[in-house]
Amino acid sequence: MSLIVQKYGGTSVGSVERIESVAERVIGWREQGHQVVIVVSAMSGETNRLVELAKAIHEQPVPRELDVLLATGEQVTIALLSMALEKRGCAARSYTGHQVHIRTDSVHNKARIVDIDDKRIRKDLDQGRVVVVAGFQGMDETGNITTLGRGGSDTSAVALAAALQADECQIYTDVDGVYTTDPRVVPEARRLDHITYEEMLEMASLGAKVLQIRSVEFASKYGVPLRVLSSFEETGCTVAGTLISAEEAEMEQALISGIAFNRDEAKVTMLGVPDQPGVAHKILGPIADSNIEVDMIIQNIAEDATTDFTFTIHRNDYDKSLAIMQETAKKLGAREVTGDTKIVKVSIVGVGMRSHAGIASTMFETLATEGVNIRMISTSEIKISVVVDEKYLELSVRALHEAFGLDQST
Amino acid sequence: MSLIVQKYGGTSVGSVERIESVAERVIGWREQGHQVVIVVSAMSGETNRLVELAKAIHEQPVPRELDVLLATGEQVTIALLSMALEKRGCAARSYTGHQVHIRTDSVHNKARIVDIDDKRIRKDLDQGRVVVVAGFQGMDETGNITTLGRGGSDTSAVALAAALQADECQIYTDVDGVYTTDPRVVPEARRLDHITYEEMLEMASLGAKVLQIRSVEFASKYGVPLRVLSSFEETGCTVAGTLISAEEAEMEQALISGIAFNRDEAKVTMLGVPDQPGVAHKILGPIADSNIEVDMIIQNIAEDATTDFTFTIHRNDYDKSLAIMQETAKKLGAREVTGDTKIVKVSIVGVGMRSHAGIASTMFETLATEGVNIRMISTSEIKISVVVDEKYLELSVRALHEAFGLDQST
Repeated sequence: MSLIVQKYGGTSVGSVERIESVAERVIGWREQGHQVVIVVSAMSGETNRLVELAKAIHEQPVPRELDVLLATGEQVTIALLSMALEKRGCAARSYTGHQVHIRTDSVHNKARIVDIDDKRIRKDLDQGRVVVVAGFQGMDETGNITTLGRGGSDTSAVALAAALQADECQIYTDVDGVYTTDPRVVPEARRLDHITYEEMLEMASLGAKVLQIRSVEFASKYGVPLRVLSSFEETGCTVAGTLISAEEAEMEQALISGIAFNRDEAKVTMLGVPDQPGVAHKILGPIADSNIEVDMIIQNIAEDATTDFTFTIHRNDYDKSLAIMQETAKKLGAREVTGDTKIVKVSIVGVGMRSHAGIASTMFETLATEGVNIRMISTSEIKISVVVDEKYLELSVRALHEAFGLDQST
Repeated sequence: MSLIVQKYGGTSVGSVERIESVAERVIGWREQGHQVVIVVSAMSGETNRLVELAKAIHEQPVPRELDVLLATGEQVTIALLSMALEKRGCAARSYTGHQVHIRTDSVHNKARIVDIDDKRIRKDLDQGRVVVVAGFQGMDETGNITTLGRGGSDTSAVALAAALQADECQIYTDVDGVYTTDPRVVPEARRLDHITYEEMLEMASLGAKVLQIRSVEFASKYGVPLRVLSSFEETGCTVAGTLISAEEAEMEQALISGIAFNRDEAKVTMLGVPDQPGVAHKILGPIADSNIEVDMIIQNIAEDATTDFTFTIHRNDYDKSLAIMQETAKKLGAREVTGDTKIVKVSIVGVGMRSHAGIASTMFETLATEGVNIRMISTSEIKISVVVDEKYLELSVRALHEAFGLDQST
């Protein structure tokens, strides 16, 4: 017997029929003798409905009250799922974040979990009940209702799994796992049976939006094995999907686990900046002050004691960034500011590259053979990213997917 | 400065516009220097929507989970109203029943309030905030969410007013007070400025459905002055409506405060029951066992050592009652069971009748003059009820309304 925490997202509980189907699945796990704790999101569409109600009153609703409002979404789901379980003769009990003391800080709308009191849940589990907990929500020290921000239910599930020392935290969603790359771009993409936390973090932040990145960090920190599964497949308890866990010595490592990419990139370059200490801070300071998140940063020293400085941002921030940079360029006496919104980032990710030389050169060679011009390069311990022209995205991803042996046939 | 608890029902908060209008009204009271605690119901239609969701899962949803589900209705309203207040620069804070420890017993779906911890609310009031509390809900000793049953928000408001020793508990609804009788039957009916708890209890239970009867009992028990007002009239803080409070010595008592009536009556009679000790119990026992509520009960001793036994019930229970009575009649050797569903009950209510003789005879004389045949009579200290044929309802109510000087002109 093991203790499993399962999380079902908004589409998985999006209708009464879907909720009934989740109940069937949960009972399947119970019948195999497992203890089960369920974390659910609001029914799909419900959070948006509530946000619209709030916006009809105030474009910028008070954060504390927005949390009180939004928390009702998950509360509806826990009640309905518990009813569906009880109807099938499965003892169940629902709890709001408040009731099981999911204690968070007081940052309304994006609170962070501080602590969970697992006593009440353990007692129910020991009495043979399935426990259904509202995801996405908690309470601060003085009992105010808080929410964790969009996608926070994944984090709720992982935090509960950590507090209960669960054997596994299963995240049910509308895809059946993590793929080597987006199957819409590369039909040969295959599902990964296993991936490490670090790889998943690189994949997630690079655009494979299967899991909330905070939940993966959390799982990694507390060593909670995470599994991504589909709630839309045949009811049953076959353990498939993708397991995300720590790297194990005996694991046979693939060189590369996957190819991630991001279409929403734009870059801004300041040319001919008089080189002096602190220039990077002077350029990036005003950008950070405007709450624009910078991704890749590259600085080359030119021959004439000036430097060229380039960084990438989200395309939505392009116009604002360009304006700020032109202002800064005047102050610094830089020659020119240019930019480009027709770029994308393609990354290869894999813990295997730590112990294998030549991965980068294989990547660059593959792209060169296809005639793809690389605009920027950035590397980390388990990832190499390149920026290329938008039009080369699909070509680049497919070529790399094949070159690193990720296709299903290989 | 006084402390006022105001309750707004479902239609008073039925839309964003209505909620904004409530906010304006509350701010008017604040500006007069009063401390204000607001109790709200779910937006009209919301509770039904939630019940339908539950019924789609199970015709008889688990009571505990139904409470978790229904409690979200009021939680949405408290958040929206607090946002509307804050938007207007009025500091406000919302609380669920759970958060302000409205402690109830554990009878899900119709819990009774046991205790309220007023500390948190007092603190907010002292800091100049308006406190917005979810009506209809509480929590039991172990922290389970409970609801008080339909109309429970009135009771929440009165209980809060009692706990806070408020100066007045104002119930805002879609009528502007308690009338001498239903104005749809008697256009000359006038609004009462004042009525006692006892009179209101008799009026409410007899069909003037302005207030939840439990809330009146509660107010009476704790001496909370209750005021019924319309939330649909011009925004402003004129104290109108009907005040419901204890009888005061110096109050000039009208003989009769109002004429109540009930259209949903039916009666069942058992004729020729051999008279013996315990016969009433033998007849009414099986009725009570079937959860049928009996209203008036009359027993006459006939000359031949048999008795005739009549009682009234709700029309919905008529068929069931008749069947049970026929069964019982066989066992007791009674002659016959008859019944009638075309009857109504008309009552005159007033604390003044305690000290004035002749009220009953005026009533009977008035009805006789109009040719109305009285089928049953029942009296209490402050009320006289008669059962008459359905077709005489309007005639009886109008004649009595005039006879006791209740018309607007008098």
